[in-house]
Amino acid sequence: MVNPMVDDSMKFSRIKPDVFGDAHPKALLKRIQEDGDKLQVLSNQHIVSAEQFEADTILQLFRLASKFESNPQRYSNPLKGKILISAFYEPSTRTRLSFESAWHRLGGDIMSITDRATTGIAKGESLADVGEMFNNYGDCVVLRESNEDSVTEMTSTLRIPIINAGNGTREHPTQAMADLYTIFKWKPELLENNGTKIKIGVIGVPSFMRTVRSLLKLFALFPDIFAEVVLIHDSDEDEIFTPGQREKLEAKGLNLTVSRTLDDILPTLDVVYINAIAWVGDSYEEHGTKFKLDKDSPLKKDAIILHPLARGDELSTDLDETPHNWYFSQARGAVFLRMALLTCMVERTERVLDVV
Amino acid sequence: MVNPMVDDSMKFSRIKPDVFGDAHPKALLKRIQEDGDKLQVLSNQHIVSAEQFEADTILQLFRLASKFESNPQRYSNPLKGKILISAFYEPSTRTRLSFESAWHRLGGDIMSITDRATTGIAKGESLADVGEMFNNYGDCVVLRESNEDSVTEMTSTLRIPIINAGNGTREHPTQAMADLYTIFKWKPELLENNGTKIKIGVIGVPSFMRTVRSLLKLFALFPDIFAEVVLIHDSDEDEIFTPGQREKLEAKGLNLTVSRTLDDILPTLDVVYINAIAWVGDSYEEHGTKFKLDKDSPLKKDAIILHPLARGDELSTDLDETPHNWYFSQARGAVFLRMALLTCMVERTERVLDVV
Amino acid sequence: MVNPMVDDSMKFSRIKPDVFGDAHPKALLKRIQEDGDKLQVLSNQHIVSAEQFEADTILQLFRLASKFESNPQRYSNPLKGKILISAFYEPSTRTRLSFESAWHRLGGDIMSITDRATTGIAKGESLADVGEMFNNYGDCVVLRESNEDSVTEMTSTLRIPIINAGNGTREHPTQAMADLYTIFKWKPELLENNGTKIKIGVIGVPSFMRTVRSLLKLFALFPDIFAEVVLIHDSDEDEIFTPGQREKLEAKGLNLTVSRTLDDILPTLDVVYINAIAWVGDSYEEHGTKFKLDKDSPLKKDAIILHPLARGDELSTDLDETPHNWYFSQARGAVFLRMALLTCMVERTERVLDVV
Repeated sequence: MVNPMVDDSMKFSRIKPDVFGDAHPKALLKRIQEDGDKLQVLSNQHIVSAEQFEADTILQLFRLASKFESNPQRYSNPLKGKILISAFYEPSTRTRLSFESAWHRLGGDIMSITDRATTGIAKGESLADVGEMFNNYGDCVVLRESNEDSVTEMTSTLRIPIINAGNGTREHPTQAMADLYTIFKWKPELLENNGTKIKIGVIGVPSFMRTVRSLLKLFALFPDIFAEVVLIHDSDEDEIFTPGQREKLEAKGLNLTVSRTLDDILPTLDVVYINAIAWVGDSYEEHGTKFKLDKDSPLKKDAIILHPLARGDELSTDLDETPHNWYFSQARGAVFLRMALLTCMVERTERVLDVV
Repeated sequence: MVNPMVDDSMKFSRIKPDVFGDAHPKALLKRIQEDGDKLQVLSNQHIVSAEQFEADTILQLFRLASKFESNPQRYSNPLKGKILISAFYEPSTRTRLSFESAWHRLGGDIMSITDRATTGIAKGESLADVGEMFNNYGDCVVLRESNEDSVTEMTSTLRIPIINAGNGTREHPTQAMADLYTIFKWKPELLENNGTKIKIGVIGVPSFMRTVRSLLKLFALFPDIFAEVVLIHDSDEDEIFTPGQREKLEAKGLNLTVSRTLDDILPTLDVVYINAIAWVGDSYEEHGTKFKLDKDSPLKKDAIILHPLARGDELSTDLDETPHNWYFSQARGAVFLRMALLTCMVERTERVLDVV
Repeated sequence: MVNPMVDDSMKFSRIKPDVFGDAHPKALLKRIQEDGDKLQVLSNQHIVSAEQFEADTILQLFRLASKFESNPQRYSNPLKGKILISAFYEPSTRTRLSFESAWHRLGGDIMSITDRATTGIAKGESLADVGEMFNNYGDCVVLRESNEDSVTEMTSTLRIPIINAGNGTREHPTQAMADLYTIFKWKPELLENNGTKIKIGVIGVPSFMRTVRSLLKLFALFPDIFAEVVLIHDSDEDEIFTPGQREKLEAKGLNLTVSRTLDDILPTLDVVYINAIAWVGDSYEEHGTKFKLDKDSPLKKDAIILHPLARGDELSTDLDETPHNWYFSQARGAVFLRMALLTCMVERTERVLDVV
């Protein structure tokens, strides 16, 4: 058969092996035994902070996420008839589409707010009243708002669950969950309690970077998997933690250290988490821009790189085609992680459990 | 079982009794006998003004709305395969999401326009041409536009039905329908023709407030249920009606009075309708801001308060937890009222009738 | 039965005969024999340029489009479970809704981007990274972007298909396909190879009008149906083609001529394609505004007019109710053409073929 397309330059392939395949999520799935009760508790909880969770619930969410990721086509209907209110008052495409894709893949419908200027909030309506309104319109809210108190103002009236998808400098719990999910997907044997530990370097400042703040809170639920967590920063040492933040994390067993240089410790790291953007109000600042990774960086042979994306110069595209690149898998996994969380929050857990 | 959530402060309850339950809509449902013919006429009508309706059609819509509200999960599919064009050229979240939620709950798909700047109208395209375009894309249009002639320009070419969701200062018929629906839901015995009458105070100016204008037109279809309709305003007396407006309403049997004070008549009112915003072009003015309600206002014990929301200072949040608060029920009922109207307009009435 | 609507002025009819009926698409459908292999090749191709196609694939797409248009309700589900990313960084309602309507009619779900300001691109994210992100979120991308290189930047990372829905001055292939589809729908006997030929006048400048550029490329696949293609323009003669553009078209057998006047050749044209807008970056310029059509223009009795819309003064509304008006049919047909293309691109062709 002659190819009827004159020009083949626009051909593409749907297949990308390795980190995008189902081997890793399947391996993780096998390591975790199902315990549905640990998910049922999510059915009447808003998700505001990474601090709300305990380890068992997180693991069950990861199990469900890996089940979705192992077989993306299998569950197309658990959210049928459910409506998501996707309220992004602070601009974002990546996070908004990640949540919306998760919801659509499960068969739900969506109403989106993508611009504060088109809303009643611009006319001075209180977020408590917006929450009361949302009760009548949907089954779940995902909120991004630059004001860190917005989400709690809204919960004061909500009778449907809300997920904090980034509130100013405070928290972004589902990003942190997706990050940790990637680590377990990469190395499921961390769950064996056989002494396997990793050393992770986190480039960022937990006092004002919401992704880092939420991430450390989740790490603190699994202190035994980390030989060491090194915070790499270029700020004043006494500014990188909020009062009590470090002490609280260490009390949970995290071995925290700090460093003002990257290249000397890079060869010792199993995981490098890099991130240069900090949200301040509704704009952002760049931090740690002197820390950059490229294919010539002295990475351990088996080290992986994580990045919440979008990236700037700090993460060179020449790493994209190397085995260090787990940041794309991290972005992909975030969809399945959100699918798992959303299913539980709108009382459809039993539709996706193996054993009901 | 130990609760696996460390922090219980984010717990919420889906249940809110009383006005949000199904007792009121069920009581209303029982009072109205189904007459499907009165709904079928809606299948080839644009909805532009509250003036278009006669009482029987309104009551059948309220019956259908109360059927939906009594059992929100029962009809999930009547709009399957139908596409709504949700065209909000004038910013609004509340009304847009109310319509979109109504459509989604019935199983339809939606395309949204939330910003005039992203449209061809910004490039000078005529609304007649936009209407012709919409014919090809969807099954129904909901339009909010600050120019009051826009909706009729668009109807000149439309072969699919359109709902006026607020055109400048002119009309907002579905808001008025939702308002009156709330009154009947609150007191279904008004339908008994046994002499039960209410006295209602409407804080607002019918000459330039579209919600008030549309509301009075609907009231005029049911003059026997109102002992008196008091318009409470702080404008010049000769400016509160447009020429002929008052005469037309009175000719239909409404007992209209006006007042420049609130507190002295408040103890006599069964229903207080409060509203401080008037749309002028694409911005708004506040009126009657000297009239305020709070929990210390001299309300009759059984009086209810209605408000189209969003609210400003005129309606204190300290009334939210009192039995006077029917404005939240009003917002909730608007979704079911719109479900009823939309179903009839896109020729799916027979899918939701008891007797076909 | 008394009509319960008081006011009948808001009545409308869903029916519009002639060009909007199914007679024309059915006639076209009959003339083309199904050859599914010619469509299967579309399953791993981005659609960037009209140049990519060969005649047989175009004809099979037109066959499928005419099948959809002949029976719009028949195929409601072929895209069930598929997610479209509708990314309109350059404002557009007409094209966006045309694609979104096509997708919804086939049962798919949609995530929309309608404003560059709400996206990560505004924060400097590369389009290659956006493409990588989109891989995780959807099954197909429709992109409109004022920068002409954006679509190829994005294809560098995409593993899902993308359609170029207008990239600056370069191309808009699906508009051209919809245009040519209209010509075949109007006169299916052009496919008979019995010597029937048409003379078409194209008002526009192929050097910088993307619709005209794409259209001529498609015409060049069917040189035998055109007795003559006259380009009518008011620019300098040496500016209306890019270097080599004319030669390439003529080498394929198109009989191209140019004219700086319209009215003298109008009586000789079977088809008049008029268009006054050229996109330059993210704004537009008007060209050829001295060429105008109205009901007094010396059109051949049977001539048809095409226009990609939106229109300005160049096309008078007094032609709308004449048989010359095929531009509304053109807009309508674009939805069905896009349905055909999208179905094939996301590997659902076999669900809509007569013979699998």
